[in-house]
Amino acid sequence: MKTALVLFAHGARDPEWAAPLHRIRERIAARRPALRVEVAFLEFMRPPLAESVLALAGAGHNRILIAPLFLAPGGHLKRDVPELIEQAQTRFPGVAIELLPPLGEIDAVLDETANWLAGKVQE
Amino acid sequence: MKTALVLFAHGARDPEWAAPLHRIRERIAARRPALRVEVAFLEFMRPPLAESVLALAGAGHNRILIAPLFLAPGGHLKRDVPELIEQAQTRFPGVAIELLPPLGEIDAVLDETANWLAGKVQE
Repeated sequence: MKTALVLFAHGARDPEWAAPLHRIRERIAARRPALRVEVAFLEFMRPPLAESVLALAGAGHNRILIAPLFLAPGGHLKRDVPELIEQAQTRFPGVAIELLPPLGEIDAVLDETANWLAGKVQE
Repeated sequence: MKTALVLFAHGARDPEWAAPLHRIRERIAARRPALRVEVAFLEFMRPPLAESVLALAGAGHNRILIAPLFLAPGGHLKRDVPELIEQAQTRFPGVAIELLPPLGEIDAVLDETANWLAGKVQE
């Protein structure tokens, strides 16, 4: 499989809002230099998810992991995102598109957040 | 100083959305059993920030750390939250109220997110 990753976030009107996605992207690039990593947004920012998937499928990737950089599954992740993925899946039946869990369901991320906060309390 | 922590998130219509806050709260309780940790929300969920601060100040806490569980500072963190904190600070001048950085500005959280995502690519 030729795998690619999409960092998918809500988006905001403020252009600086996307900075953390690029920080995560740089960190992944340091760990997996050969992996193609794109960003995508639900609203306010570009590109939308469909455009990132199109670019990756067009470049021959046949496994696309969507990492939703959301705290928890609310209306967006329960309704909007599955619909977007279904549309992309219909368009590219030969590509395996997988939705990863949101940040608040990843134990390692929760642990690290709790560690950091517990440390701040003592400062 | 008698310190307390508030886990502050956007909120959503879906009641399950708040689950990650409680997961983080449990993890902090395991690390700092004596620390009082409250949750608060900007919209859709209760309590609002003012109510959590009132409860903590009323219980004698004189240092309240607000941890914004947002990916990045957009309109909410740049405008709404400073205003809420200023209102709380005016109401409780003897309490030091500090806003911590959002998740996307915490290096340890970014590192752990990148580690986890880099690992998923190989599965």
